[in-house]
Amino acid sequence: MFQSFENTSNPEAGPARLKALRKRMREAEVDAVIIPRSDAHQGEYVAPCDERLAWLTGFTGSAGFALVTLNKAVVFIDGRYRAQVRQQVSLDHFTPVNWPEEKPSDWLIEHLEEGATVAFDPWLHGVDEIDRLATQLEAHGIDTDWAQLVDDIWEDRPARPAAPMAVYPEHLAGQSLAEKCDAVAAALRNEGQAAAVLTLPDSICWLLNVRGGDIPRIPVMHAFAIVQVDGTVDLCTDAPADDDVRAHFGARVKLHPYNGLLDGLEALSGKVRLDTKSAPIKIWAYLAGLQALDGGKVEPVQGTDPCQLPKACKSDAEIAGARVAHLRDAAAMCEFLCWLDAEAPKGTLTEIDVVKRLEECRVATGALKDISFDTISGAGPNGAIVHYRVTEETNRQVRPGELLLVDSGGQYLDGTTDITRTVAIGDVEDVAAQCFTRVLQGMIAISQTRFPKGLAGRDLDALARAPLWQAGLDYDHGTGHGVGSYLSVHEGPQRLSRISHVPLEPGMILSNEPGYYREGAFGIRIENLIAVQTAPVIDGGDPREMLEFETLTFVPIDRRLIVAEKLTALERDWLNNYHAAVLDKVGPGVTEATQEWLRAACAPI
Amino acid sequence: MFQSFENTSNPEAGPARLKALRKRMREAEVDAVIIPRSDAHQGEYVAPCDERLAWLTGFTGSAGFALVTLNKAVVFIDGRYRAQVRQQVSLDHFTPVNWPEEKPSDWLIEHLEEGATVAFDPWLHGVDEIDRLATQLEAHGIDTDWAQLVDDIWEDRPARPAAPMAVYPEHLAGQSLAEKCDAVAAALRNEGQAAAVLTLPDSICWLLNVRGGDIPRIPVMHAFAIVQVDGTVDLCTDAPADDDVRAHFGARVKLHPYNGLLDGLEALSGKVRLDTKSAPIKIWAYLAGLQALDGGKVEPVQGTDPCQLPKACKSDAEIAGARVAHLRDAAAMCEFLCWLDAEAPKGTLTEIDVVKRLEECRVATGALKDISFDTISGAGPNGAIVHYRVTEETNRQVRPGELLLVDSGGQYLDGTTDITRTVAIGDVEDVAAQCFTRVLQGMIAISQTRFPKGLAGRDLDALARAPLWQAGLDYDHGTGHGVGSYLSVHEGPQRLSRISHVPLEPGMILSNEPGYYREGAFGIRIENLIAVQTAPVIDGGDPREMLEFETLTFVPIDRRLIVAEKLTALERDWLNNYHAAVLDKVGPGVTEATQEWLRAACAPI
Repeated sequence: MFQSFENTSNPEAGPARLKALRKRMREAEVDAVIIPRSDAHQGEYVAPCDERLAWLTGFTGSAGFALVTLNKAVVFIDGRYRAQVRQQVSLDHFTPVNWPEEKPSDWLIEHLEEGATVAFDPWLHGVDEIDRLATQLEAHGIDTDWAQLVDDIWEDRPARPAAPMAVYPEHLAGQSLAEKCDAVAAALRNEGQAAAVLTLPDSICWLLNVRGGDIPRIPVMHAFAIVQVDGTVDLCTDAPADDDVRAHFGARVKLHPYNGLLDGLEALSGKVRLDTKSAPIKIWAYLAGLQALDGGKVEPVQGTDPCQLPKACKSDAEIAGARVAHLRDAAAMCEFLCWLDAEAPKGTLTEIDVVKRLEECRVATGALKDISFDTISGAGPNGAIVHYRVTEETNRQVRPGELLLVDSGGQYLDGTTDITRTVAIGDVEDVAAQCFTRVLQGMIAISQTRFPKGLAGRDLDALARAPLWQAGLDYDHGTGHGVGSYLSVHEGPQRLSRISHVPLEPGMILSNEPGYYREGAFGIRIENLIAVQTAPVIDGGDPREMLEFETLTFVPIDRRLIVAEKLTALERDWLNNYHAAVLDKVGPGVTEATQEWLRAACAPI
Repeated sequence: MFQSFENTSNPEAGPARLKALRKRMREAEVDAVIIPRSDAHQGEYVAPCDERLAWLTGFTGSAGFALVTLNKAVVFIDGRYRAQVRQQVSLDHFTPVNWPEEKPSDWLIEHLEEGATVAFDPWLHGVDEIDRLATQLEAHGIDTDWAQLVDDIWEDRPARPAAPMAVYPEHLAGQSLAEKCDAVAAALRNEGQAAAVLTLPDSICWLLNVRGGDIPRIPVMHAFAIVQVDGTVDLCTDAPADDDVRAHFGARVKLHPYNGLLDGLEALSGKVRLDTKSAPIKIWAYLAGLQALDGGKVEPVQGTDPCQLPKACKSDAEIAGARVAHLRDAAAMCEFLCWLDAEAPKGTLTEIDVVKRLEECRVATGALKDISFDTISGAGPNGAIVHYRVTEETNRQVRPGELLLVDSGGQYLDGTTDITRTVAIGDVEDVAAQCFTRVLQGMIAISQTRFPKGLAGRDLDALARAPLWQAGLDYDHGTGHGVGSYLSVHEGPQRLSRISHVPLEPGMILSNEPGYYREGAFGIRIENLIAVQTAPVIDGGDPREMLEFETLTFVPIDRRLIVAEKLTALERDWLNNYHAAVLDKVGPGVTEATQEWLRAACAPI
């Protein structure tokens, strides 16, 4: 079982650890310390050795940070974790603070005196983040300093993981390591740059056609890399490389220990590119230090991670792999949904039962490497909690008359999936179906749109919301995020969101997941993955370059929740064609019982 | 007749004038000169005394500029004027250059030597525009200098206009001069500013509740103003003020001559706000000069025109006035369309006949002050020229079997109108109706949308285009522009466009005008004006603040061009409700013949 339902929090240990931290702060002459929930690679998941925030406070959410002074300690958490934090931390010692409504800089300015020093670990914070914070603090006479105070006192800290690397097959990647490195090197040459430092594990794994196993849910290893303008790469990782990997790397990739990055920087000269949105301040500062020492032999320059865009624009092989992975995942989802329809109306299932069964169905494919994120299984009002993750404490009965929202995905060698279906358990009230139908209309609008080349996610986002807006409804998250190829289920720069100005390009995979959430009552989300592709010229159309979306996900959408007469003819056609395709593509690969269920679930409306 | 169809160009005079200009350039030791089509107030229309570009080159388009060196002369024109410029200028002496594809800075750098000097009139160019240009030229060793060389040699230049000002009734403005000045003064105080210099005549007219008559199509006078933080205003204009206007101004507004602005600046101290997007570089430089001389007594600061946003958010009285003006204008439009339907199929009308008749219908209301812009009357392929303006030379027969696109508007004391209708003349080919229907669907999508408060035009633009995109079509202009209240038919900052990030606010009036243009064949545009208003809470809706649009324009949309079966039920309902409202609101005020026509034109589909 990949997913765990334990509350791994240990709040009773918090007070003693807080005391030890303050002792260490006094020794280090520090007035405040920032403890983030991040490692040096700024991903969504971290290894146990990087769970500093949970270790100190008990709070296990996926985002947040603590600020500790000599007499106060607070945990900043966003809207998702307002309730969870109160269950997980000792409220006598830690006060939750609403973020981003409150700003850490304001809190520090309010609680520190002029001349105070705030310590942070320079590996755990990005350049831009620290630049902003330090500027604000400096204006109030507060200094910042580097220190790893939690690491100093965390005696039984787990070891850094070092799972072995494996070669990612070229027939799935669609491009060789050499081709990718040469393309990135050409991009550097174009900008007059001598090298780029990569700090994002998924960029490194994509570039080198390898995968790792250091972090849950994302098949990557802890690593840094320096791409040289000659197309060779220095890879710093403690993940073991077997003969296959070494042969794959050949002379192009030189292996160094994980902590060998700084030595590697010393050897550089010329312009060295670093993405300051994600790279640790430590690296930028180290390069700047070398530049000062060396009279400008090295010059750090800000630039986006050069792998980000090519990684986002999947190769034909990656798209082909994604299609296969999605049909495999769809078969597992259909087995699961068939079982759910039979069992759930009895009223005996819990949210955890649902998660377990779904994972079993995926495991039964024989190809599941991991789930791509912890499954969200929210029954009734829990469905309205957008980032709900069920634990033994919150586990709720799946009751007839309610909606069940299940958002889940798998990591397969040929692709990463992410799908949400919202299912009626028994008879549900009409308002849920009315809302579901509008969410579906938005999801169809994105699925079937064509749009001129050059447009970004922000130019399309309204199409998904307009049907909800008409009823006075909306949802407070983006319409879609980028998805990797056997990499992170959340990747940039592509998004379907009002804040995304990156033009969509063929090969980008995105989620299409409008939703609607009625607090205390129900949550609805319908999510397919889609891939951007060039739209064929239409008879009678202008000679304009246009793009469209290919749908990758083929799993029935609950017909019992669709108010058919509210759909336009085009929407109904889309739905019926979609369901016919589901039956056609997925039907042959499922059990007989599921086939029968599928035929009913895919019947035209 | 407000509109003229003459080609007012005088290209044969160009060569002699060019020669005189070059003589003057040599005397002034200048190597190049920029001649823009603008006055000091950066509006779309200019008075005859400011038609420097037309006087020198013969080109009368509404945008463009000439660059003249001692041996070359070019006219930069955008896509609208590629054909017109070739008819209007002496091609032996002036070469057309495509703009913005080619940049004036690049052209100057290519054609001038290092050390050369480019002269421009500092009253005719904005601060930001000149800053960009001068920086680029400086990098190539080219200087810029101020000179009014065209004015020096233009012997029979018309006098600057000085039409009298008139008070704009407070019951139409909805706010007194004192209230507006105090609100603007409060905004300045808030920013720590001592004064704002206004250079846009429509801002000044709005603020002071007056109108003028110096510029065609826009009821404003040539003026500058200084708003002091105490709420008093120094108004610099040569427009005569009668006793009514003087009484209206009272002690709050001090009158100065138009050329008294610089003296007014000398009296200032503290931060003085100027909108560098529109204000002449002369004013900024003058303030900067005072600051340098005076040891910082005055400090020019960049800030948006403080009247821009309050002017855009119309008062209840202005919206009420707009409703009345639009119904009056709708009656005139209906008389015109009824006549057109009777006459046009005979095949004897021309585009100019159409413009004349429409203007007569508006004049017949007895309330028309001016047309709000030169009517676009484009038959057949001329309809595909987005900014077509008919002249005696281009005048085309209105032929049966073609579409006629008519985009026009009126200036009434209670409001400014802008409406486009595209009409079938006789039987037209099916493709035109197919395209018309998609344009209509986009126009309806905007008309009936609700959206969360805080969204900008760019968040909605896609709704108007999606039906066209589906057929591989699009249009290369924004979906809508802001409209003033008995002021400019084009005003900011509100727009329905991918480039507009200004949140829409209640009271803003916009056009809603998707279109489709098939070069060499036909043009389609359907345009209503709409006003942003707070959307009432819907039964079952969330407690979210939402906005919607009130339609102001009530004129039939040509039913003969609508493919009814392509509309959704909601679209059909919208159209039938709209036409019922047209009949109800406009029917009682038109002639009997037009009433009969209107009943048929408004019949449900």
